[in-house]
Amino acid sequence: MNPRVEHISGSLIREIAQKRKPTSINLGLGEPSLAPNPAHLEAGMRYAKEHGLRYTVNAGDLALREAIAAQYAYPDMHSAENVCVTTGSQEATYAVIKTLLDPAKDELLVVEPAFPSYAKMAALEGIEVRTVAMREEDGFAFDADLILNAVTKNTRLIVICSPCNPTARVIDDATVRRIAAALEARGGDPVWVLHDEIYREQTFVANAGYFAKVYPHTIVTNSISKSNALTGLRLGWVMAPARVAASLVKVHAWLTSCADTFAQQAALHIFSSGAIGEHSAWYSQRRDGVARALAQSGLPHILPEGSFYACVRLPEGLKSLEAAHELADRYDVIAIPGIAFGPSFESWLRLSWVAPPESVAEGLTRIATYCRTAAPGR
Amino acid sequence: MNPRVEHISGSLIREIAQKRKPTSINLGLGEPSLAPNPAHLEAGMRYAKEHGLRYTVNAGDLALREAIAAQYAYPDMHSAENVCVTTGSQEATYAVIKTLLDPAKDELLVVEPAFPSYAKMAALEGIEVRTVAMREEDGFAFDADLILNAVTKNTRLIVICSPCNPTARVIDDATVRRIAAALEARGGDPVWVLHDEIYREQTFVANAGYFAKVYPHTIVTNSISKSNALTGLRLGWVMAPARVAASLVKVHAWLTSCADTFAQQAALHIFSSGAIGEHSAWYSQRRDGVARALAQSGLPHILPEGSFYACVRLPEGLKSLEAAHELADRYDVIAIPGIAFGPSFESWLRLSWVAPPESVAEGLTRIATYCRTAAPGR
Repeated sequence: MNPRVEHISGSLIREIAQKRKPTSINLGLGEPSLAPNPAHLEAGMRYAKEHGLRYTVNAGDLALREAIAAQYAYPDMHSAENVCVTTGSQEATYAVIKTLLDPAKDELLVVEPAFPSYAKMAALEGIEVRTVAMREEDGFAFDADLILNAVTKNTRLIVICSPCNPTARVIDDATVRRIAAALEARGGDPVWVLHDEIYREQTFVANAGYFAKVYPHTIVTNSISKSNALTGLRLGWVMAPARVAASLVKVHAWLTSCADTFAQQAALHIFSSGAIGEHSAWYSQRRDGVARALAQSGLPHILPEGSFYACVRLPEGLKSLEAAHELADRYDVIAIPGIAFGPSFESWLRLSWVAPPESVAEGLTRIATYCRTAAPGR
Repeated sequence: MNPRVEHISGSLIREIAQKRKPTSINLGLGEPSLAPNPAHLEAGMRYAKEHGLRYTVNAGDLALREAIAAQYAYPDMHSAENVCVTTGSQEATYAVIKTLLDPAKDELLVVEPAFPSYAKMAALEGIEVRTVAMREEDGFAFDADLILNAVTKNTRLIVICSPCNPTARVIDDATVRRIAAALEARGGDPVWVLHDEIYREQTFVANAGYFAKVYPHTIVTNSISKSNALTGLRLGWVMAPARVAASLVKVHAWLTSCADTFAQQAALHIFSSGAIGEHSAWYSQRRDGVARALAQSGLPHILPEGSFYACVRLPEGLKSLEAAHELADRYDVIAIPGIAFGPSFESWLRLSWVAPPESVAEGLTRIATYCRTAAPGR
């Protein structure tokens, strides 16, 4: 057996999520609770009945790749050759890590708190991972100096998820420009930035920054999973400058051959009908309600700038994994322990707010009660 | 960049396939030309409209995994925990190679002629590949002694595709039992067999052998791609003893998270309606016609025992890649050069016979003409 596989630990997120009972208030969900728009799936059905469901070329359906490139219109990524369609953004991310980094010498820099998959994928590939934690006192806002100071001579890829899972922070335009300028000024082999934009359509601030707009060594991953409530369709993509995109397509071809043709047709319908943001207003409205419920709860929290998460702080001395188990077992609330996203987030819980507003409010009330009761010294 | 990615060469099969013109007789296709049964897709639609399309658990929908395990009823692989649903059998194969082999010391043994993906995947993982070629004078029949003699102390996985792409040979039960007994008798760390069963529903002989029936260290990959004309749906699976299956699920979880929920529901409909073999009779009938057309062509050939390929031999001295280009350029016939499947197959062409019978017959006639004209010394 491959020792790297044996050493990979299971998912803390799933460990907690599996405690869910039918009665539970589920704030653990990492996927939309909205129903998808059936029009997109019906477009897939019409296509299948007319043409069957054959393989597409490895990189994906040409019209879909053109539509994706046109939607974002990033400089140096504006044509089909810059896009590879993948099995969700998960495969896209895996392909980026595998393609860009030489396990013999390159390092991945993960900006924490971060979704655990980046580090786990690198571990499976035998790639060295360095992490840099944003500051709790800044509400884990993206900090250009912290990130830049963590870059070593071996760093070849920095991964930044913004809007961020778990913190719900959004990197702003000025911070992106500062990081880009400093990385450009280094000279030598480029340091690539992987901007995970999977929560792009859930952005609630006006000054969001996009590396692909200003930094030529950017790779973008995204999908229709969160934007259009289609997590189960497993349709994502990666965008990159042409030479890197060609290498990504090679890796993708051996990993999975090509993305699902039905799902590609559904995605083509989404882009050609201008529906990529069809749920954005719903999230915006819900987010305002969540902001009020967070204030009412009295819990220390980070106001969500993007994504569909909100994070609350536990009282000093409580461990997040223990708290999450207690909340599941005694309060029937599912919340994800911060430790899953790195040691810097140990005192926090990640809550998703795709559940009905009254459930979110009730969940926050129970968490506040737990925090009052469980705080050490009480 | 990862040097392993840069060193992987492009696909010869695609190089030739891209020469196809609208007028071409296309014997290059690696996928069914039948239309899929819409009932399976409609089952996926009904599910999506009722439940949306959420993630399934990493290993796949429980009912689907139970149905797959029940369908094959292999000893030690008869329950859901033995099945991991994947993005086609391509991801399944990738996960097997990555999970089972330690790049530091283990070797993969590929039985040739073989589809190139096994060796390319191993190369991407930095895993040593050894090949063993079956004998041309036996029509590339699977030979237990040849295979067993190629096993070294480092061999931890043997990959066998039967029915075979490209040779259309099927390993027989006696050969499977001989190999299994000899591998068992070795003692020490087990040598695993990956039986790629993707053409299982296109089997035209009665004595087909299945490693999973007799050898406890077997892993099986398969999909609904070829059986049900659903290549584009990207729905496959891997079956393994429980401990290995659990490791495969971990790798699969980081590669792609989970398979497409829509496709899983379509697959569940296929299994629960007993439709996995719904196209088998069609292939059987076509195969009889192909056998007659091959005889009429006068070309040396291997009679297909399984799959939807037939292989014909070029005259001595012709190179298969050159021949395939000539056939495409001057005869408007797309055929896959044998060299794509290993040096032992250099004098052969792989022809698929999913095209209409008259096209297959006309293609064979043109190839026979080419062979008469192009043979060196004429």
